[in-house]
This record gives sequence, C-alpha cells and structure tokens, in this order.
Amino acid sequence: MGETPIRFGILGCASIARKVSRAISLSTNATVFAIGSRSVEKAQKYVSANAFIPPSVKIYGSYEAVLDDPEVDAVYVPLPTSLHLQWAVLAAEKSKHVLLEKPVALNAAEFDRIVSACEANGVQFMDGTMWMHHPRTALMREFIADPVRFGSPKSIHSTFTFTADPEFLKNNIRAKPDLDALGALGDLGWYCARAILWAVDYELPKTVTAIKGTVFNEAGVILSCGASLLWEDGKVATFHCSFLSNTTMNITTTGTVGTLHVDDFVIPCAETSSSFLTSTKTGFSELDTEWKPLPSEHVVTNELPQEALMVKEFARLVKGIKEGSLKAESKWPVYGRKTQLVLDRVIESIERGYESVEVVD
Amino acid sequence: MGETPIRFGILGCASIARKVSRAISLSTNATVFAIGSRSVEKAQKYVSANAFIPPSVKIYGSYEAVLDDPEVDAVYVPLPTSLHLQWAVLAAEKSKHVLLEKPVALNAAEFDRIVSACEANGVQFMDGTMWMHHPRTALMREFIADPVRFGSPKSIHSTFTFTADPEFLKNNIRAKPDLDALGALGDLGWYCARAILWAVDYELPKTVTAIKGTVFNEAGVILSCGASLLWEDGKVATFHCSFLSNTTMNITTTGTVGTLHVDDFVIPCAETSSSFLTSTKTGFSELDTEWKPLPSEHVVTNELPQEALMVKEFARLVKGIKEGSLKAESKWPVYGRKTQLVLDRVIESIERGYESVEVVD
Repeated sequence: MGETPIRFGILGCASIARKVSRAISLSTNATVFAIGSRSVEKAQKYVSANAFIPPSVKIYGSYEAVLDDPEVDAVYVPLPTSLHLQWAVLAAEKSKHVLLEKPVALNAAEFDRIVSACEANGVQFMDGTMWMHHPRTALMREFIADPVRFGSPKSIHSTFTFTADPEFLKNNIRAKPDLDALGALGDLGWYCARAILWAVDYELPKTVTAIKGTVFNEAGVILSCGASLLWEDGKVATFHCSFLSNTTMNITTTGTVGTLHVDDFVIPCAETSSSFLTSTKTGFSELDTEWKPLPSEHVVTNELPQEALMVKEFARLVKGIKEGSLKAESKWPVYGRKTQLVLDRVIESIERGYESVEVVD
Repeated sequence: MGETPIRFGILGCASIARKVSRAISLSTNATVFAIGSRSVEKAQKYVSANAFIPPSVKIYGSYEAVLDDPEVDAVYVPLPTSLHLQWAVLAAEKSKHVLLEKPVALNAAEFDRIVSACEANGVQFMDGTMWMHHPRTALMREFIADPVRFGSPKSIHSTFTFTADPEFLKNNIRAKPDLDALGALGDLGWYCARAILWAVDYELPKTVTAIKGTVFNEAGVILSCGASLLWEDGKVATFHCSFLSNTTMNITTTGTVGTLHVDDFVIPCAETSSSFLTSTKTGFSELDTEWKPLPSEHVVTNELPQEALMVKEFARLVKGIKEGSLKAESKWPVYGRKTQLVLDRVIESIERGYESVEVVD
C-alpha cells in the first residue's frame, strides 16, 4: 500500500491544469484520478486533448461530484479566484486536501476561512506557487540566510510582467472583476510579494505604500501596479507587476555584505537547468575600474520541473497525513496568508490615494 | 598643431582624480598639464604617488593658480559638491572648459548658475558620469529605442548601493553636510536618476515620490533612500541607493515588447569587456514550462575604458571649440540638469513627509 499514489481530483478545465496534470503524471506519488467540469462533455474534450491525463480518469459533470468521490484524496483547484472560497472550503469539509491556485483568495478574510476549513478538517493546504519548490530557491535561500556571504537584508526589488494582448486585457478571467478581481496584482504581484517576504524570511513589513501609476481596465481591474514596503528595522522593498510589458521576472536583494539576483524566478528559462547570481563583499580593483571579486553564477540542475516537485511534496504530505505519520505542514498557509495580507494592503493603499498603510496581522 | 593634446588642470587631490588622471593619460588627445591643491606639498606628494600624472606637470599651491595659467585649456573638478559652484563658475569665467564630478551641484539652482557661466564664456560643460560614454550604453540605447525589439518603455528600476564602513559613514566627505550634503542620493542616486532618465530618452517625469525608509546619519546626511517616478503617459520607475548594502548597480527596464537588464552599469565588471541582457516578445514553450525565446546576452568589447572615452570626447569637443569648428555640446548640461532636478524633487518629497511632488522645469 506504500506505493499507492495520491489520487487527485481536478476542479475545472483551466489551461494551467494542463501543466499541473503533467506535473502530477511526472511526480511518482500522485495520479490524476478524477476531473470535474460544469459539463461532462467539456471535461471529456479536455481529457482527450490532454496527453498527461490517464484515459482511466473519472469524468464528472460537476465539481461537487469530484468532492463526493470517496476515492479522491486531494483536489487541485485552478478555478477563478472568486470561486476559491466556496470550493476550497467545501473540499476541505469533504476531507479533501487542497492544492489551490494563486492568488488563493480575494482578501485575507477569505483566505482565513479557507485555511480554517482545512485546519478544522485536518487536510493539507498548499497554494500553487511553484517556484517555492525549485531546488534553486532553496540554494538562493541558503545564500541570503548566510551571514558570511549575504549578511542582513537591506533592500529587495522584484518585477513580474508580461505583455497581454488586447483580447486578454478585456476578456481573460484575470481582467474580469467578477472572476479574478485582483487582476495583475493577484496574478503577478502575488509572486513579487511572495519573493519579497521570502527574502526577509517572512517577516511582515510595517507599512505598505502603493506606488502611483496604477493602471486599471474599463471594468476597474488592475492591469499594472506596484508598491513599496518598509520594515521596522529599516529594510525596504519595491515591486512592479503588470500585464503591459514584456515578460520579466526578477528579484534583486541586497544585504550588508552580499547581493542576490535572479532573472527568471517564477518560471525558469529552462525546465531542468537554471541559475542565479551572487556577489559577496564586492569591491573594486585599484582605481575602481573593475569589480573584485566578480559575481558568481550558480547553476542548478533538477531532474523534475518545479511544478512536479510541488505536486510531489504536496502528495508526500497528504500521504503522511493519511497514514497518520505527519501533521499538516503549517508553513504553507502561513506563507500564503502573509502574501495575501500584503496584497490587501496594496489595494487599500491604492484606494486611499497612495497613503501608507500599516500592516497589522 | 592638430596633434596638440588638450591641457587639463586638476583642482584638488581627490581619490577619483587618480582614475581620471589615468583616463587622461590613456586618451590620445589630452594631457594632465597642471594640478592645484591647497598646498604645494600635498600636490607634490599626490603627483609622486600617481604614476599616471606626467612628471612635467605644473604644481600649484591653490586652485586659482591653475585657473590663472593661460596654457590650461580645461579643468577637471573632483572637489566636494559644496565647492562646485564657486570653482566651476570661476573656471568658466577664466575661460576654462569644465569637466565636473557628480553630483554637479547641491540643487538645480546652483546647477543653472554653473551652466550659465559656461554658456556665457563659451566653454564646454560635462559631468563625470562615465558610463554614458561606454559603447555598451550606446548599444543598450539602440535596443530600447527600437520599436521592434523593445517597444515603448513601461517601467524602469535601478539600484545602486555599496557597503561603506563605519569610518566612511561618519567621516567621508560624502557623509558630511558641509561637503557632499546630498550623501548617498548625490553619490549613487545620481546614477539611478540618470539611468531612469536615459531609459526614457530624458523625458522628465510628472511626479517624484520618495519611498519611505530614508536613512540619515547623525549629521542628517542621507545614507540610504529611494523614490518612485511617474510620467504623464503612465510609465513608472523606482530606484534605491544606499551606502548600507553590498555593491549592486543594475537597471531593469521593461517595454511593451522587450526587456533590458544590466548588472554593472556604473562600473563594468571588467574594463574592456562587458555585457547586457535583452529579451524580445518573450513567451513560453507549450504548457509554460520554459522561456521561448531565451534572453540574449550581448557582449561588448572596448579598447579604452569608459572614463578614457569620456575624457576623449570632452577633449574632442574642447579642441573643436578652440579651433572654432564646434559649438559647445548642449546635451551634457541638459542631461545633467534633469538629473539634478529629479534629485531636488526626491529631497523635497522626503522633506514633505513622502508626498508626491510635481516636476516643473
């Protein structure tokens, strides 16, 4: 029985679910067991077009039916954000472990209701922030946690953008106030806020101040925005997220003795090989004409892509909980909640005319 | 006579003047002709310790004496910022062309007085922002000016930091209110502001808003700060400059179809070979697991270091003006003035409690 894979049910036929279906098939401890859509026909079409979903998959004509299948261990929920509360809570209540796409919720209050339901029902919660599971992320974390190579963090900047076409900006769910009301902030800013929190080991900032220049679409959804964050001890961070400029996804963080830079943190340029740059105690040659020492490039190879590592870790936790050998891992709701809290404060700052707002947990 | 090099007088014995003396000696059209210090002894010591200053150099016991030497064509002024107004204006009045270290002045009003004196006396003004003269900068400019590869600029971020030791933070001229009152903003933020203006082809922003978290030393000089800039058309920029974290000097600018990133824009990692990264119409492979196309690294080799190219261009202009074949190049005061104007607004925003301030030229 130790070899039984965790049986995933997928709610909906989102495009991202194709990537995660492949990840589930690549992980060695999980399988796509069921898929539910608002119509059986739609789900059938989706399954036939998706080579990574086994033909044996159970197809249901509703999300409820997936949750009612006693053989489903866990659900992957790539529904529009406005549906997360309803379906993630129901999944937890039906004792399904929940792997939830980001942004997890429309606000921290909703986030808390989802996580409370998971906790009350003893199921694992994890959000779909894939880069957290890349081995490069752990190596970068080692670097910035090292007092000798990096020192104390002083500043962080993260940019995450991509150019959406006019059709997307009008009709994609991520530009619809009733579906993904957080727009670019939820879709892209989620990663920037997470990167910043990650860089400071999840210490919440004292204040968040949105940066003037938010762009909204006609329906009032954010297409581009940014914010600055300030911590009690003087650390500062800024981010910029936007649907309006070419794909860019970087983090620069400076510490008292070191610097980390990564150019492709959300989705690595290549699936199984990626890199990051570090510098430590950077000085200059005589007369300040060259760097000394030069920055170091660190190359990381990984057998499985980050999304498969995410699934594998989630399935490992689920298996342990099922077998009684593990309790639900609490760091995922903690990281997610802080991320959501920062996004809440960005929205609040924008609504208050770019005033600084306190972050009270 | 066409081969006569431009004769430089250097005012003061600043550390940076060693780098620029070498640059003058490397350029083929200029020579270090005179140096003035508050004492002849100090200047003599400086000259003996500096292999790049020819032994034939004239040594003067005052700055005035350099300006009064009729054979001096131009002066290089690496004095503390608070002395720039006095000495740059006097140099211009004595018909010396002026290569002035940055920050040019303590504020735009002083800047204008310096440039007015240069214009009234028909001498060239240039500030010592060396990276402007690197051939890489011209290639990067070509990229961001290209509608096919980059499109319209949408966002810019620049960080420039280095870790100063406690002695520096207390006693270096860049931490003294009576010498370099602009502190890290003048020393490092100057480059960030210039990089941002450069990235938007010197269009002034509509507003500047300092970012909360400015750090001052006991004397009230800025050790760390940042700002956001917003343009009429929605472009946004942020920068962070600091004496408190490891050497970092990057620019990321995103356009509607492209991205530019450079990690060592102020001083290239190596003197005669440097690089930058670009991406155009970045998309992803099937299932969004890898970048497609990958970013491109552009390597640039240069025979002369950027500071020698700066001197060479300055001397070329001076020679042309002397010979009557050229008028003073007006772009240098224009770029410098806009840079100074942005710094002024950052200071104003900090003083007004981080309010947004309008940029009125």
